[in-house]
Amino acid sequence: MASHDKVRVAVVGASGYSGIEAVRILASHPFVELSVLTSEHYAGREVADVFRHLAGVDLPPFEELRADLLRGRADFVLSCLPEKVGTTMVAELVKDEVDVIDFSADFRLTDPVQYRTTYGVDHPAPGLLRQAVYGLTEFHRAQIREARLVANPGCFPTAALLALLPLIKRDLIEPSSIIIDSKSGTTGARRAAAIEQLYAEVNENFRAYNVGKHRHTPEMEQEISAALGREVAILFVPHLLPVTRGILSSIFMRPRAGTTESDVAAAFEASFAKSRFVRIMKPGELPEIKNVRATNFCEIAYMLDRRTGTLLVITAIDNLGKGAAGQAIQNLNIMLGFDEAAGLLNVAPVP
Amino acid sequence: MASHDKVRVAVVGASGYSGIEAVRILASHPFVELSVLTSEHYAGREVADVFRHLAGVDLPPFEELRADLLRGRADFVLSCLPEKVGTTMVAELVKDEVDVIDFSADFRLTDPVQYRTTYGVDHPAPGLLRQAVYGLTEFHRAQIREARLVANPGCFPTAALLALLPLIKRDLIEPSSIIIDSKSGTTGARRAAAIEQLYAEVNENFRAYNVGKHRHTPEMEQEISAALGREVAILFVPHLLPVTRGILSSIFMRPRAGTTESDVAAAFEASFAKSRFVRIMKPGELPEIKNVRATNFCEIAYMLDRRTGTLLVITAIDNLGKGAAGQAIQNLNIMLGFDEAAGLLNVAPVP
Amino acid sequence: MASHDKVRVAVVGASGYSGIEAVRILASHPFVELSVLTSEHYAGREVADVFRHLAGVDLPPFEELRADLLRGRADFVLSCLPEKVGTTMVAELVKDEVDVIDFSADFRLTDPVQYRTTYGVDHPAPGLLRQAVYGLTEFHRAQIREARLVANPGCFPTAALLALLPLIKRDLIEPSSIIIDSKSGTTGARRAAAIEQLYAEVNENFRAYNVGKHRHTPEMEQEISAALGREVAILFVPHLLPVTRGILSSIFMRPRAGTTESDVAAAFEASFAKSRFVRIMKPGELPEIKNVRATNFCEIAYMLDRRTGTLLVITAIDNLGKGAAGQAIQNLNIMLGFDEAAGLLNVAPVP
Amino acid sequence: MASHDKVRVAVVGASGYSGIEAVRILASHPFVELSVLTSEHYAGREVADVFRHLAGVDLPPFEELRADLLRGRADFVLSCLPEKVGTTMVAELVKDEVDVIDFSADFRLTDPVQYRTTYGVDHPAPGLLRQAVYGLTEFHRAQIREARLVANPGCFPTAALLALLPLIKRDLIEPSSIIIDSKSGTTGARRAAAIEQLYAEVNENFRAYNVGKHRHTPEMEQEISAALGREVAILFVPHLLPVTRGILSSIFMRPRAGTTESDVAAAFEASFAKSRFVRIMKPGELPEIKNVRATNFCEIAYMLDRRTGTLLVITAIDNLGKGAAGQAIQNLNIMLGFDEAAGLLNVAPVP
Repeated sequence: MASHDKVRVAVVGASGYSGIEAVRILASHPFVELSVLTSEHYAGREVADVFRHLAGVDLPPFEELRADLLRGRADFVLSCLPEKVGTTMVAELVKDEVDVIDFSADFRLTDPVQYRTTYGVDHPAPGLLRQAVYGLTEFHRAQIREARLVANPGCFPTAALLALLPLIKRDLIEPSSIIIDSKSGTTGARRAAAIEQLYAEVNENFRAYNVGKHRHTPEMEQEISAALGREVAILFVPHLLPVTRGILSSIFMRPRAGTTESDVAAAFEASFAKSRFVRIMKPGELPEIKNVRATNFCEIAYMLDRRTGTLLVITAIDNLGKGAAGQAIQNLNIMLGFDEAAGLLNVAPVP
Repeated sequence: MASHDKVRVAVVGASGYSGIEAVRILASHPFVELSVLTSEHYAGREVADVFRHLAGVDLPPFEELRADLLRGRADFVLSCLPEKVGTTMVAELVKDEVDVIDFSADFRLTDPVQYRTTYGVDHPAPGLLRQAVYGLTEFHRAQIREARLVANPGCFPTAALLALLPLIKRDLIEPSSIIIDSKSGTTGARRAAAIEQLYAEVNENFRAYNVGKHRHTPEMEQEISAALGREVAILFVPHLLPVTRGILSSIFMRPRAGTTESDVAAAFEASFAKSRFVRIMKPGELPEIKNVRATNFCEIAYMLDRRTGTLLVITAIDNLGKGAAGQAIQNLNIMLGFDEAAGLLNVAPVP
Repeated sequence: MASHDKVRVAVVGASGYSGIEAVRILASHPFVELSVLTSEHYAGREVADVFRHLAGVDLPPFEELRADLLRGRADFVLSCLPEKVGTTMVAELVKDEVDVIDFSADFRLTDPVQYRTTYGVDHPAPGLLRQAVYGLTEFHRAQIREARLVANPGCFPTAALLALLPLIKRDLIEPSSIIIDSKSGTTGARRAAAIEQLYAEVNENFRAYNVGKHRHTPEMEQEISAALGREVAILFVPHLLPVTRGILSSIFMRPRAGTTESDVAAAFEASFAKSRFVRIMKPGELPEIKNVRATNFCEIAYMLDRRTGTLLVITAIDNLGKGAAGQAIQNLNIMLGFDEAAGLLNVAPVP
Repeated sequence: MASHDKVRVAVVGASGYSGIEAVRILASHPFVELSVLTSEHYAGREVADVFRHLAGVDLPPFEELRADLLRGRADFVLSCLPEKVGTTMVAELVKDEVDVIDFSADFRLTDPVQYRTTYGVDHPAPGLLRQAVYGLTEFHRAQIREARLVANPGCFPTAALLALLPLIKRDLIEPSSIIIDSKSGTTGARRAAAIEQLYAEVNENFRAYNVGKHRHTPEMEQEISAALGREVAILFVPHLLPVTRGILSSIFMRPRAGTTESDVAAAFEASFAKSRFVRIMKPGELPEIKNVRATNFCEIAYMLDRRTGTLLVITAIDNLGKGAAGQAIQNLNIMLGFDEAAGLLNVAPVP
């Protein structure tokens, strides 16, 4: 395919952690041309002057974000702006019939009331909330294919829902018993100056934060409730790991009476049989974040502990990969009719 | 107190991680003189030639472990040998009326059958199992004071039991609902060559291990069951953190119907009112391993999540401090009639 | 000594990395009472609410810095403010006959012209520049004892001058050949929000910075030139290590014709015979930052490489210890007539 | 090119750090098929059972190394065995007319006497020493193209020679003045159990090792001397960084009288004009190991410090990339007539 035949993609907010990861992946994507990159902070600078690992890649310079400047220069937009910052622009793009994948939480919640509760402001484009498709690829391929606006899932929800939805769908667990203990690398937070994110604050430390009130909680509950057909509350406890990338979640549930390990195996098999990015662990194997680093893969293991009657599922993803840019490009591939795995099959650099 | 009045303490297995930490703490203990240090690996060498951070401290050289060589040269022995290695020596020392604190699991389980199940061999001195006192200081001070042999608790059990026993004792939780999600630094494993403990294997990684079958599980269950008065099974999931020291445990339980946050507060207050090493967090605070690094402190926070009906307790200790050498010396202080905190009140080096 | 007999010390700028380290050390100092702690950022808050590792230590709350509020409440001031911020306050304190140790570079350079060149502004109190004593303890004990104002050396200069001055004083090296290759942990930079100091930017990375133009270069040159009796230029290359604390410097020089390894040994012996904080390595030993972490110690090794005619000296310090707060308190001890090592003889927590 | 047309490559010693990195790179190489993988430790196991990041890649299982088992199953062999272990096998392969790239130091030194001095044994196949080509790609492309046996350069020599050879070739520096201060990640050491490589020993530490006597010194001296036409001695000081991958070297030299920064610029320009893997930094930029992580790139910066008359060159590579497997595959590409960059143009995952 000649260069002028490639789809022109703009990455808006391209100098954040998930934005520059999207640029890195798309830099070697066979069917995409990066036509516009915006960055408030670095507008006017060459990408490689700021992110030298991209030296040698043919990229447009960072520019200021102006919706009118985007017009006609991109067929597809990845918006990597934080919550509330890009909402109006996304709405305009959709009106202009430009397909958009939004990395923020702006279009993930379907209920404007919940949005206001969680984010403290009225949603500026509530009409789009029901139009947007929640981009958890493995469970919404058909809708993603038809979508004009995909709300890319949060990193924690991705790690949790890949574990939970197969079980919910087969009614194998007590939904009210779900406890999600998650541990994330530091790039889950924004690339913005903050004392609590300094190296000396995070290094050799480990702590929980936002216990029981993290903004990803309503997002998870919405998706679980939708699959279940009724409201459910979960307990989500995030922790901060002294690593750059990766989320490992240990998820505890009570199985329904009679649920066997075979039932669980069958549920995962059914959900992920065709999924090239989900690796179900063999008995005795356990997920590790190093095995999915800088990739779009997810590792999943499950164990039914008979002694305590608890079902444990452990998942590992890269928060910038399957938890952000990787899944976004997987969705882009589906929306544009490409092979779902195009540009995404690299092997994790281990060690 | 002149030097010849100090209690002569031997540290056996002094070149392991917990052994050398005991040496470090005792090096500035006001009432103790380190009279014998043994190390299979470094016998014959000066301590500071191997562990240069101890240069300038007046210490005997490492020597081979021979029970007859210990005789008459130490009033008190800290045995930091691994499971099964030091059992017979400890039994002989106790027979010789030398007080011993054993860091291994050898004398923690009171039931020889459980010992055989867990460690795969018959216990060589089963008669001592009931004589040994489980050295969880905050809950067994009276017995420790009278003990000749203290089984120093495991690091994970210490982190978990400080959270659980106050609640069990007041019957505030459903014991069958306990889930312990623990994350430990690498010095929880022995200072022994192993590929899986190499820097490049642990760094930038995070994983669970020995899920549901870690050897600390029966130890926790024994102590919880003893406090409860009946057998209970728990689910314990350890993870390996890329940090040198520290354990943070997030512990989930269902409260008994009617349990309030005030009840929980009162339970912790009652258990730890006189405990100088336990810090109960204020509302909004959460434990961090950096705050207890290289100390004997424990941080505890609790939250009753009304939405899901779950009680969460989070604890942080240093696995080599309160989880091993620190608690051992706290116990030594009690056994020898010293101030419980002697030599242990240093402030954590943060950052 | 009863509490009311202790010297009342104020730490100004106490919430930075070197400030809070001074607080940590002084918290267990036998002859000092911390009477005032200032912090622009945290004024009004209890210290332990911000730095919980200090919970349980009896400390005054952080307060705003106002010179008039200090008056009469402190006998001695440690100023941990950055360059230019505390200069005027320090000058006022000295006028008020309060002894001061200043952690910044404000009073290190004796030449106001050099100050202007390096820091871009006229010195506001140039008269104090010649009055201030450069607090490299091991070389200026006599002047420090008499000083009212000590300029505490920079971390890199401390690491380098402890290696160089013994050799310069005995004329063993070609001063024009000095190359200083230094590697520092991240707490060498201020505790202030900055993208380049975020965990994800520093972790798994290593780089040089400010090559040949770091502000510590004139400071080192001043002290070397003073010892030598004539001007000398050196090459200083700092690098940023992904560790929290520690500086290791490898320093290369051409020895004078005829200089032997014995001459070098004798020079270090002569300079440090009475120095309890300097450890000269035995043959085959090399400095490691872990061995001096959270202490005031310095490790030094030297090698004369006959093949290339190069003398190499390697030093390790903790940038917050001997490179900042440790050395400051060593100087405070001297100024106040205490044992030089009071409060400073803790053993590094290794591992 | 259909699969059956691909070159069949065996990786011998494939479970070490550089071996498994070669497998990772070749897994997505367009013209290569991995036909044999040997591992003493893991013989009989599937690769993905040990290195799960390679799950999903079609690979043969690990097998025992037996030269007769290799015969007829590989057209090309990458030998990743340590020094002395693979020497005889390599000699046999060459006799059998199988092209080999050897990762060890076995065929790097051209002089058997130097080999004996450095490695303590007589070389078992001294006749091959002069036949082997030193695989520093950018300087030996023509010989590599014709070679049957390439001795892949050491990681430290690669980092140093890319800085030095351009300057030596143009006679811009005093060769006797070369000082190489290198800092390496831990995968520079073998993937073998060793206490000194445990996480808790390396983490939060930094130290020099093998100062002036590292085995890479004669290798560097040989190549510099060959370029210069006469013997030269250099000083090489390696340090161990707490990172998994990466080498940054700061190299100091005295320029010849009259050497200008333009001369230096021209020298690098001439040496690397056609080199897609060498990035010369712009003024103000400095190399960082993160920018070359998991790639075959090398970053180079140079500064002529007028004040001290010193030329400083800083280089960054990935010790497993350009320092081992990356360069090996670059050489393989040349030997097999492929595009030199085939399979090697991935962008570093940053952060």
